[in-house]
Amino acid sequence: MSYRGGIDLGGTKIQAVVIDDDHEVAGQSRRPTPTKGSPADVASEIAAALEEAAAGASVETSALIGIGVGSPGKVDDSAGTVTGAKNLPGWAGSFDLRSALEEACGAPVALGNDVQVATDAEFELGAGRPYQSVLGVFWGTGVGGGIVLDGKPWLGRDAAGEIGHVVVKMGGAECPCGRQGCMEAYAGRLAMELRARKDVERGEKTQLFKIMEERGRTRLTSGVWSRALDRGDELAERLIERAVRALGAGVGSCVNVLDVEAVIIGGGLGLRLGQPYVDRIREAMEPHLFANENPPAVELAALGDLGGAIGASLLARHLVRS
Amino acid sequence: MSYRGGIDLGGTKIQAVVIDDDHEVAGQSRRPTPTKGSPADVASEIAAALEEAAAGASVETSALIGIGVGSPGKVDDSAGTVTGAKNLPGWAGSFDLRSALEEACGAPVALGNDVQVATDAEFELGAGRPYQSVLGVFWGTGVGGGIVLDGKPWLGRDAAGEIGHVVVKMGGAECPCGRQGCMEAYAGRLAMELRARKDVERGEKTQLFKIMEERGRTRLTSGVWSRALDRGDELAERLIERAVRALGAGVGSCVNVLDVEAVIIGGGLGLRLGQPYVDRIREAMEPHLFANENPPAVELAALGDLGGAIGASLLARHLVRS
Repeated sequence: MSYRGGIDLGGTKIQAVVIDDDHEVAGQSRRPTPTKGSPADVASEIAAALEEAAAGASVETSALIGIGVGSPGKVDDSAGTVTGAKNLPGWAGSFDLRSALEEACGAPVALGNDVQVATDAEFELGAGRPYQSVLGVFWGTGVGGGIVLDGKPWLGRDAAGEIGHVVVKMGGAECPCGRQGCMEAYAGRLAMELRARKDVERGEKTQLFKIMEERGRTRLTSGVWSRALDRGDELAERLIERAVRALGAGVGSCVNVLDVEAVIIGGGLGLRLGQPYVDRIREAMEPHLFANENPPAVELAALGDLGGAIGASLLARHLVRS
Repeated sequence: MSYRGGIDLGGTKIQAVVIDDDHEVAGQSRRPTPTKGSPADVASEIAAALEEAAAGASVETSALIGIGVGSPGKVDDSAGTVTGAKNLPGWAGSFDLRSALEEACGAPVALGNDVQVATDAEFELGAGRPYQSVLGVFWGTGVGGGIVLDGKPWLGRDAAGEIGHVVVKMGGAECPCGRQGCMEAYAGRLAMELRARKDVERGEKTQLFKIMEERGRTRLTSGVWSRALDRGDELAERLIERAVRALGAGVGSCVNVLDVEAVIIGGGLGLRLGQPYVDRIREAMEPHLFANENPPAVELAALGDLGGAIGASLLARHLVRS
């Protein structure tokens, strides 16, 4: 049996997995992403997480056939660099993540876009297996998209799949990206939190921030939203309904352009809220679908929150030791 | 020298061309599309137009290596049928256009989607030649889109490229398609005419309908809009500006999803208004582009209003006589 490593590098957490030849998870580890320091500090945490995951699989990281990393920011696998990863500390510039990890782990490293590798994982091993064309929708802090057409990732000039910034309302809500009316301005968790804070300032009542404190959080995490919905919190319900409507319009627009066989919904909020909300998004899409006699399948991501790391590990399959 | 035929079948006109091996137009003819009758009557007009175009090239239609047809509606080349071409008389159902034309013209016939063949023509012979990925935007009665990725048409499940029905404003203007907030509800010529009529009913002044009558038209054609703009008509300017803003948001959304190298603007209005409006659409897109450091080229279609027919003729290249 040979093993490969996979890393899902996020703004909140680093998820590491070690995967065997049958794509089974042999070891895993999760660490918080450093909020201070430099890219080198993040690389050290990645290496530490991978070491723990490898220990779980009873292998050394140096024995892995390779390590794949799904990263935010601009990823250049040929150069080995990640540039402008704004959610990560001190990472506005370019950092040679490959060299840092190869030195720390003793195995070859391949880099990919976080959202695209998660889509590839669902396509190859998860909810996308029956289909040849898939749109991955990652509903979390932002709304990311990954595209597979005719069995292959479509990356464009490296910036395809930015579905969070599809315009759903000209002149509409301000998006954390600085633009107006993006789908993410309504559906991204960060934008929803900013909106909830404003609504509270205006005197609206909600349990969202009370639940946040009870859970020892400093942000409205997916779990906080989910609990607020369970308690019937009206503001939470209204903002989630607004998010679902925006996802219906924005993802529906993407389907009108791409006409994929399937839409797969993942991401922190998507996974947490689960199938009932996948169904609501499907219903919210319907009025916008031009070819509405032939809608795509809309499915919940099947690999859960390990999907990104598993997808990253797929990048390592074709690595050869130098 | 061998010749092939190309037909652009539109709701207003039938454009026929005969093209030689160097992709030069050897003959052409244009006829109004019948507004009454049946699909068989439309097929007869197509055959008559092609005969005229062939006469211009001094060949018989039966000597053509093949005839390509770019058609609206649902096109099934394997069956030879066109279904649900709503702009064409009596064509709600399915019609075997291939058999009708092969019998009338004595040459093999291939069918394709009108917008896609126009995009293919620009990609192979026109403004798209320098690029490997292209979005064709056909700004006319509606707003159609054609997609080429990695050098090949992307058709999805046969309904890709419906960019006119990308949602640019949730809860916004009613689209002729019956949905709300589509790009076409703001930018399509039909929707713009309906809006202009309403504005006139509300007491607004415009020269649009006066120009329409002067030109002997019954609809606000691209030429009518162009003349009204030349005369500084305020309503025309406002509705065109509204269309440009919607195109900026909607096409910008498509670029955020596809990240193509180039956007090519054609269609009746696009060609008529020309480069200054291509520049305005480019500017209107910019605020919505997520990867705004690397915008796509935005170009005017180079093949003019023969592009659709020339593109259709490309379908005939690989036909073999039975």
